[in-house]
Amino acid sequence: MIKLYGMTGSGNCWKPAVLMKQLGQPFEWTEINTLKGETRTPEFLALNANGRVPLLIVNGRKLAESNAMLCYLADGTDYFPADRWQRAKILEWMFFEQYSHEPYIATVRFWVHFMQKQEEWKDKIAEAMKKGHAALGVMEQQLQKTSFLAGARYSIADIALYAYTHVAHEGGYDLNAYPAINDWMKRLEAQPKFEKMTG
Amino acid sequence: MIKLYGMTGSGNCWKPAVLMKQLGQPFEWTEINTLKGETRTPEFLALNANGRVPLLIVNGRKLAESNAMLCYLADGTDYFPADRWQRAKILEWMFFEQYSHEPYIATVRFWVHFMQKQEEWKDKIAEAMKKGHAALGVMEQQLQKTSFLAGARYSIADIALYAYTHVAHEGGYDLNAYPAINDWMKRLEAQPKFEKMTG
Repeated sequence: MIKLYGMTGSGNCWKPAVLMKQLGQPFEWTEINTLKGETRTPEFLALNANGRVPLLIVNGRKLAESNAMLCYLADGTDYFPADRWQRAKILEWMFFEQYSHEPYIATVRFWVHFMQKQEEWKDKIAEAMKKGHAALGVMEQQLQKTSFLAGARYSIADIALYAYTHVAHEGGYDLNAYPAINDWMKRLEAQPKFEKMTG
Repeated sequence: MIKLYGMTGSGNCWKPAVLMKQLGQPFEWTEINTLKGETRTPEFLALNANGRVPLLIVNGRKLAESNAMLCYLADGTDYFPADRWQRAKILEWMFFEQYSHEPYIATVRFWVHFMQKQEEWKDKIAEAMKKGHAALGVMEQQLQKTSFLAGARYSIADIALYAYTHVAHEGGYDLNAYPAINDWMKRLEAQPKFEKMTG
C-alpha cells in the first residue's frame, strides 16, 4: 500500500492525492500538522531530512517533493506521456511552479489564510503579490493559446499549477483579470475523478 | 543546431551547457546580460514570457527552466536512467534545488557577488543564509551515505546541485563544515568532459 504523509489544506499535499484518486491508485493518508511542528520531530526528520510534507512511501522507499511524486505516479499514463519533448514541456511548467509561482502564491495564502498576517505584513505581501501576478500573467498567456498548460491535453503540469491557483483568492489574489485561467480551472474540475482541495 | 541563450556566470545557464559538453552535443551560445535588462525586452519576452535565461531552442521549439532542459537533454543517457524509481529520486533532488537551495544560495551570491550589497543587506543575507545552510545540511546528510545525490551514480541531479554549491563561497558561504559536499564536488570535477563554471 502506498502511504502519503500530508497536511489537509496544503496544495503541495493535495497534488499526489488527487492524481492517485484519478488513477484509481489506493493509498493511505497520514495527517501531519506542519503548524504544530510535526515535520520537525526527530521521527519525521528520519523520514525526510528536509522536514517537509508531502512525503510518499512506496514499498518502504521514501520520496519527497510533490512534483517528483506526480512524475513518478503518472509515469506510463496519459497524464505524463512518453514523448520526449512533451515531457520536457510538462517539466518546464512544474519547475516554473516551484520557482516562480508557489513561493509567491502559496506563501501569501499561508501568511494571510493560516497566519492572519494581512495587516502586519502588508508591505511584504504587496511585494510578493507583484511576483505572483507575474506568474499568473505567464499562465494566462499560455492558456490563451492552448487548453492546458503543456498543450491540448490535460497533464500533471495542470495539477501542479492548479494546486495553489485555485486557492489564490484565500491569500487575497483577485483572479478576475485572468479569464483564460478561470476557464482552464473549470476544464480541470470537469476531468474524470478530479477533486478540489478541501480544508 | 541547438541554441542556448544564457548569461556567463549564471549557474542555471551553466547546467545545460556543461551537460551538452559532456554528451558531445554541439550547441550555439548566445550571451544575454540579465543585469542590463536583456531578458525583459519585447524580443526576448516573445521567446520566453517568463523573461529568464537559460532558454533552449531545439528545432525552433523553445524550452525554459534549466532543470527541464537537463531532463530533456539527458533523456536516454546514463545521466537520467530509465528506471522509474531512480528517475523519481533524481527529480526529487532537482525540485529540491529550485525550491530549497537556489533561492538562498544563488540569490545570496547574486546580492553579494554581482550587486555588492553585503553591507547594505546584511540582515536579509543572514536570514537567507540560515535556509541556505539548511539545504547544504540536507545534501551533506545524503552524501555521507551515497557517492552522488541520487545514489551510486553521477546524474543530472548532481549537475543541478553543483551549479550554485560550487560558487556558494562567492556569496560568503563557508563550506568547511561540509566534508561530504567537498568530496562530492571533487568527484564531479573528475567526471569526463566536466567543466566548472567560468566568469
